[in-house]
Amino acid sequence: MPAGSVVSFQGELGAFSQEACRKIFGPKIKLLPCPTFEDAFVAVVSKKAALAVIPIENSLAGSIHQNFDLLSRYSLEAVAETQVRIEHNLIAHPECEARSVDKIYSHPVALAQCEKFLRRMKSAEKVAFSDTAGSVRHIRDHGLKTAAAIASAEAARIYGMKILRSGIEDSRENYTRFLALARNGRFPRGGEKTSIVFSLTNEPGALFKALSVFALRNINLTKIESRPIHGKPWEYFFYVDLQSDIRSRECVNAIRHLQERMKYFRILGSYSTY
Amino acid sequence: MPAGSVVSFQGELGAFSQEACRKIFGPKIKLLPCPTFEDAFVAVVSKKAALAVIPIENSLAGSIHQNFDLLSRYSLEAVAETQVRIEHNLIAHPECEARSVDKIYSHPVALAQCEKFLRRMKSAEKVAFSDTAGSVRHIRDHGLKTAAAIASAEAARIYGMKILRSGIEDSRENYTRFLALARNGRFPRGGEKTSIVFSLTNEPGALFKALSVFALRNINLTKIESRPIHGKPWEYFFYVDLQSDIRSRECVNAIRHLQERMKYFRILGSYSTY
Repeated sequence: MPAGSVVSFQGELGAFSQEACRKIFGPKIKLLPCPTFEDAFVAVVSKKAALAVIPIENSLAGSIHQNFDLLSRYSLEAVAETQVRIEHNLIAHPECEARSVDKIYSHPVALAQCEKFLRRMKSAEKVAFSDTAGSVRHIRDHGLKTAAAIASAEAARIYGMKILRSGIEDSRENYTRFLALARNGRFPRGGEKTSIVFSLTNEPGALFKALSVFALRNINLTKIESRPIHGKPWEYFFYVDLQSDIRSRECVNAIRHLQERMKYFRILGSYSTY
Repeated sequence: MPAGSVVSFQGELGAFSQEACRKIFGPKIKLLPCPTFEDAFVAVVSKKAALAVIPIENSLAGSIHQNFDLLSRYSLEAVAETQVRIEHNLIAHPECEARSVDKIYSHPVALAQCEKFLRRMKSAEKVAFSDTAGSVRHIRDHGLKTAAAIASAEAARIYGMKILRSGIEDSRENYTRFLALARNGRFPRGGEKTSIVFSLTNEPGALFKALSVFALRNINLTKIESRPIHGKPWEYFFYVDLQSDIRSRECVNAIRHLQERMKYFRILGSYSTY
């Protein structure tokens, strides 16, 4: 990754996506925060960014479906993967005291992931916000002294706010997987993992037959996700992650075998984990 | 279903779930509207209701994951299924005129499903509401005359509001599937479909082997959904719908075969479609 390459992500500076950008690409990239996931995709399509880093799955909340749908709509290629442990913090203005907090802002998923902690903060109203780091910035921008936000420690640092309580998430087993996406063909394909998407003909055993091309070659599936095909009720796109390198003969053969029988097929990428 | 049986559902009277209740059980049941999906489950567990009717999947938005997770948490049994075509309407106070609408309330999924129509209503602010029918009731309760809601025609009728525009959804292929749930053993099992949930041992080909028990018996899968197992990052519960009756020998044998190798297994129900 050349120094100074622009990487887009959804959220404000301090978002968990930013940590994912740093894990994959190190400190020398330029960050482009975007209001929505689609904006982060469009930044790459329109060449404002070389890459986008988007969350694809959380170990508690599950797949982030909107991003699977965007993977289908924009034909970008997955070029890297990482995972980030999600540690939530209660963050407030430096002059705020914990007992005076009467409002807590954060993304609804973050609020849900801190439910046990928040139940003890009975008197504080929970307010949904578009973004975790954005909720910290909101507190800073408006100088709110009786409100708190839930976000990363990095967000507290960036916006000069203080951490009232750290590690307030219900479960420590809280990880988010991120993919880095680039325009097709900009990076050589290959790595420990390969992601594909396909749709099936409507016949008994269709999914079984599709998976057989991998099972017969001992290729492990780490994830399967189905998403509805718009305009075709109860038909699905299947997104599958394989522990296999597209440069290997088994993977190439399995995919050739799969393509023989699929209505629709696309390789989303073959990449390494950082 | 004895006349007067209580059926719980999420939402206000006039919700699409209410239409699903009527399609399955006819006019002689008593409806119990609940604020949340979990409340609808709990009403059955605590015997306040004989049955709950909950949406499980929309043909455009996909699975309603929260309800899959609730199916695991509360061990109720699926006893019937139906699908409802989702027709959205712009609904307002009888004294409201279309050109004076400056706010449009509805559930975020309904707002997203009317995106094309709403783009033409540029000057109106879109406001997320917990429930489609509830947004119509909100307009009535507060006598709002420059606001509109998006909901079913039934909601307009119930709350005495008028339909400004009908069929405003982007896609006609918009259906929601609902399951009726009861306490275990209250109804005899059997019908065209069987739903199961299982988790896999972590070995290559595990899902392929699981599906083989159905493919080898020509049992068709109509749906597969994976949901994260809390506390075990990147392990999943698989929810599978089979076109098969639990009273058939093939289905019984397939399930016995599956149970031999699954870490976790449960029959969610075997039921007919209404």
